[in-house]
Amino acid sequence: MSDDVEIRRRVLTANLDLVRLGLVIFTWGNASAVDRERGLMYIKPSGVDYARMTPDDIVPVRLADGTVASGNLRPSSDTPTHLALYRAWPRVGGIVHTHSEYATAIAQAGVPIPAQGSTHADYFHGDVPVTRGLTRSEVEGDYESRTGDVIIERFVQGQMDPIAVPGVLVDQHGPFSWGVTVEQAVMHAGTMEHLSKMFVHAAAVAPRLRRVPRYLLDKHYQRKHGPKAYYGQKPG
Amino acid sequence: MSDDVEIRRRVLTANLDLVRLGLVIFTWGNASAVDRERGLMYIKPSGVDYARMTPDDIVPVRLADGTVASGNLRPSSDTPTHLALYRAWPRVGGIVHTHSEYATAIAQAGVPIPAQGSTHADYFHGDVPVTRGLTRSEVEGDYESRTGDVIIERFVQGQMDPIAVPGVLVDQHGPFSWGVTVEQAVMHAGTMEHLSKMFVHAAAVAPRLRRVPRYLLDKHYQRKHGPKAYYGQKPG
Amino acid sequence: MSDDVEIRRRVLTANLDLVRLGLVIFTWGNASAVDRERGLMYIKPSGVDYARMTPDDIVPVRLADGTVASGNLRPSSDTPTHLALYRAWPRVGGIVHTHSEYATAIAQAGVPIPAQGSTHADYFHGDVPVTRGLTRSEVEGDYESRTGDVIIERFVQGQMDPIAVPGVLVDQHGPFSWGVTVEQAVMHAGTMEHLSKMFVHAAAVAPRLRRVPRYLLDKHYQRKHGPKAYYGQKPG
Amino acid sequence: MSDDVEIRRRVLTANLDLVRLGLVIFTWGNASAVDRERGLMYIKPSGVDYARMTPDDIVPVRLADGTVASGNLRPSSDTPTHLALYRAWPRVGGIVHTHSEYATAIAQAGVPIPAQGSTHADYFHGDVPVTRGLTRSEVEGDYESRTGDVIIERFVQGQMDPIAVPGVLVDQHGPFSWGVTVEQAVMHAGTMEHLSKMFVHAAAVAPRLRRVPRYLLDKHYQRKHGPKAYYGQKPG
Repeated sequence: MSDDVEIRRRVLTANLDLVRLGLVIFTWGNASAVDRERGLMYIKPSGVDYARMTPDDIVPVRLADGTVASGNLRPSSDTPTHLALYRAWPRVGGIVHTHSEYATAIAQAGVPIPAQGSTHADYFHGDVPVTRGLTRSEVEGDYESRTGDVIIERFVQGQMDPIAVPGVLVDQHGPFSWGVTVEQAVMHAGTMEHLSKMFVHAAAVAPRLRRVPRYLLDKHYQRKHGPKAYYGQKPG
Repeated sequence: MSDDVEIRRRVLTANLDLVRLGLVIFTWGNASAVDRERGLMYIKPSGVDYARMTPDDIVPVRLADGTVASGNLRPSSDTPTHLALYRAWPRVGGIVHTHSEYATAIAQAGVPIPAQGSTHADYFHGDVPVTRGLTRSEVEGDYESRTGDVIIERFVQGQMDPIAVPGVLVDQHGPFSWGVTVEQAVMHAGTMEHLSKMFVHAAAVAPRLRRVPRYLLDKHYQRKHGPKAYYGQKPG
Repeated sequence: MSDDVEIRRRVLTANLDLVRLGLVIFTWGNASAVDRERGLMYIKPSGVDYARMTPDDIVPVRLADGTVASGNLRPSSDTPTHLALYRAWPRVGGIVHTHSEYATAIAQAGVPIPAQGSTHADYFHGDVPVTRGLTRSEVEGDYESRTGDVIIERFVQGQMDPIAVPGVLVDQHGPFSWGVTVEQAVMHAGTMEHLSKMFVHAAAVAPRLRRVPRYLLDKHYQRKHGPKAYYGQKPG
Repeated sequence: MSDDVEIRRRVLTANLDLVRLGLVIFTWGNASAVDRERGLMYIKPSGVDYARMTPDDIVPVRLADGTVASGNLRPSSDTPTHLALYRAWPRVGGIVHTHSEYATAIAQAGVPIPAQGSTHADYFHGDVPVTRGLTRSEVEGDYESRTGDVIIERFVQGQMDPIAVPGVLVDQHGPFSWGVTVEQAVMHAGTMEHLSKMFVHAAAVAPRLRRVPRYLLDKHYQRKHGPKAYYGQKPG
C-alpha cells in the first residue's frame, strides 16, 4: 500500500474512533497525521458528515505553506493550529482536537487538569496545562494560527516537553492532544476526557484539590515510557 | 416526491433523531417544520410511540388558525407554542422542543446558558436566554400559546435575532430550539444539551462564572455564519 | 391467551424494560402486576439472571397470605413490600422497585424529589416524598413488610393520593413506583430517575432550591389526567 | 474441560465483562483468578487489546514466586499486587482492578465510599476503605507489591474481613475488588462504581454526609450472606 493510501486510512480511522469513543458529536472534532518526508499533513475535511467520509476525502496540506496538495475539499478550519504545532514540534506525528464534554468544560472554567492520580501519571508527566486566553487582536487576526501559537507559548514558558505532556486545554475553547502517532493522539484525547470526568467528580466529594506527589508522577511515567519501562509487551 | 411527502419524511426523521441523540426519552419531545407557501406546519402527533410512527402520522396544522388540515391524529399538545413562534418569526423553518436532561435542569434552575466558550459561540451569538415564568392567569388560560408569547417577549425585550440565538429555555419547563430548517433545529437542540452539560461540569470545578469576551463570540459566529464564513465546504 | 399467560408476559416485559431503560444493573430491581379477581400478584423471581428469564419464571403469590401459588422459584425478596402496597391501595395494578443511580442517591441523601418543573408536574402532582427511616425493631423484624408500612404511613400522613403521586423514595434504600398498570409503574420509575438527574444538575448551577407554583402543578397534571385531558390521542 | 482451559476461559470472560459493564476503557483494568491446588494465578496479559484477546493469552503465574508458568506474554504490570492479596487472604478466589470513572475519582479524592444505603449494605459490610498513600521509598522500590501491602495493612488495622468488605480504594490510584470467585470480584467492581456514582450525586443535593445505622448494615448483609440468607434461589 502506498504511503498516501495508508495515511489517509489511518487518519479516517482516527476521526471515526473519536466518534466511537464518545469524544465527538456532530462534526465537532478533527484528527490529523503528518508525513514528514513528503512534507504533508493529512486532516479531516471541514463540515463533512462522518457517516459518508472516505479515505479520499482526507485533505493533504503542505506543511511548508498550508496550501491544499490535492482534491477539492476544504481542510478543517482548525488546520492552521495543527500546522503550527507540527512545525514547532518535530517529534509529533498526530494531532487531535475535540469539544469533548468534560475536557471542554474544564477549558471553559479556565483551569488545568490537575495530576490527581496514577491514571493521569501513566500518560501525562504533570498537569495538563491551560493556555492564556487570546487577545482581541489575536482573535480578530489569523485566529487559528494564533491558537497554535498560544499553545506553543505555554509549553515554552512552562519548560514542558510536548511528548511527556501530550495535551493542552485552550482557554474558553477546548482540548488538543497529540502523540508520536495519530493513534496515540486519539488515546490521549480519550485519557484527557476520563481525567476531566474524575476531576469533576472528585470536586463534588472533596472540594480541596489534591495532587499526586512528584515521585508517584515519575514512577508511573517511567514504568510506561522510561528506558526501563515494564508496561505492555516487549517489542517484537 | 411531492412537498407533502417530503416534509412529512423530514419531520419524522427529525423526531427520530431527537431519540437517537439521547435528547428524548419516552415521547417527551416534538419537532415540526413549516411550509410557508402552503401555510401548513407539520408536527409530531401527541403521545404516539416513536417505534411505530410513520410519515403518515405527522399532523399538518394550518398556520392561520391552528386547525388540523388532514388525518385523524391530534397534533402534539405543544402545537400552539410552535404556531406562535412560526407566526412571529418568518425566517424560522423548523422548531424542536425536548425535556433533555441537562437543558431542562438549567431551565428548572431558572438561569440562562452562559456563553462560556467557542462551542457556544459557533452556534449561539450570546447567552441562551431564559424566559420569565408564566403568571397564574397565563397558565390557567391558553397555556401553550402563552408559552410561545413569553418566548417572543424575551427576544423582543433582549433585542435578540432568533436566527443568531436559535434557542431559549422556558422557565421551569425546558428548552425550545429552531432554525432555518428542522434539521438545524435538531442540531441546536443537541448543542444546547451539550452546552448545558458543560455549564454544570464547569460549575463543579470553578464556581465563579466566566463568559467569553465579545470579540470571541463575534469571531466564531462570523466564521460560520457571516458573509466571509470559511467553515464547512463551499456551497456546491 | 389466558389471563395467567398474559400477565406473566407483561411482568417479564416490564422487568426487561427496566434493564433496557438503564434503571437496573445486575439483578437489582423488580416489577410486579396484580390480578385482583384471582387474588394473585405476579413478581420477578429472586436473583435470577435477566438474560435467561422466561414468563414461566415469574412467580405468582397469593395476595391474601403471601404464599407462592405455583412453581419452584422464590419470589423477589421485596415481595412483602409489594404485597403491603397492593393491599393498601386497591387502584394500583403494578409496582416497580429499582436501585437506579440518581433516584437511589436522592434516597440516600434523605430528601424528596422536589417538583421543579413541568416534566415533574406531568406525572407527579407534588414532590415525590421520602419516607422516614425504619427503626431498629422494624429492620430487625419483618423488614420488607415494614418497608411497605412506612411507605403507606407517609402517604396517610401527607394526605396524598397514590394515583396522583405514583412513587416514593424509601430513606437510605431507594425508589418504589406504581401505577394503574405495570407499564405505568415502569414509566414512573423512568420519570423519577430523569427528575432525580435534573435535581442533581440544577443544584450544581443554582444552589437555592426552586419549586413550581401550585397552579403550574395543577395545569400539567390536569391536561394529562383530568376530566378535560387533551394530551395524547382520543381513546379509540 | 481441563482446569487450565476452564480457568483461562473464566478469566477472559471476566476481563471482557469489565469492558461490557463500562468499568474499563482502553486496556485499563485487569481480572485474575487463582487455582490454589495447582498454585497458579491466571491474569490478563499487559497492554493487549481486548478485541483480540483469547484464552491462550491469559498468563499463568506461580503463586509461590511470581514467575510465569507458561507462554510468552508478560502478565499485567499489577501482577505483584494480585499476588500479595492472594497470599494474604486464602479465601479469595478472584481479584479485579479498574480505573473506573467514579470509584477512581473517589480514590483520587482520598476518601472512603461511605455506607449510605441498602445497595451498599447488600455487598459491603461497612464503608469501602481507602488506603494510606505510599511513601516515596515504597513507590520507588517494588511499587506494585507495596500496593498490595498497604491494602492488607488497611484491613489489618481496621480489623476488617476481606470477604465481608470485598473491595478497597488505593489512595490516588483506584479501586481493587475481590471475591470467592472472579465473577464475584467483577460484580463487586461494578457495585463499587455504582456506589461511587451515588456518593457523588448525593453530595450535590445534601452536602452533609449520612451513613446507614449499624442495624441496617447488619440486616442487609445477613439476608444475603448470613446463615439464614433468604435472597436468591435455594442452592440446587
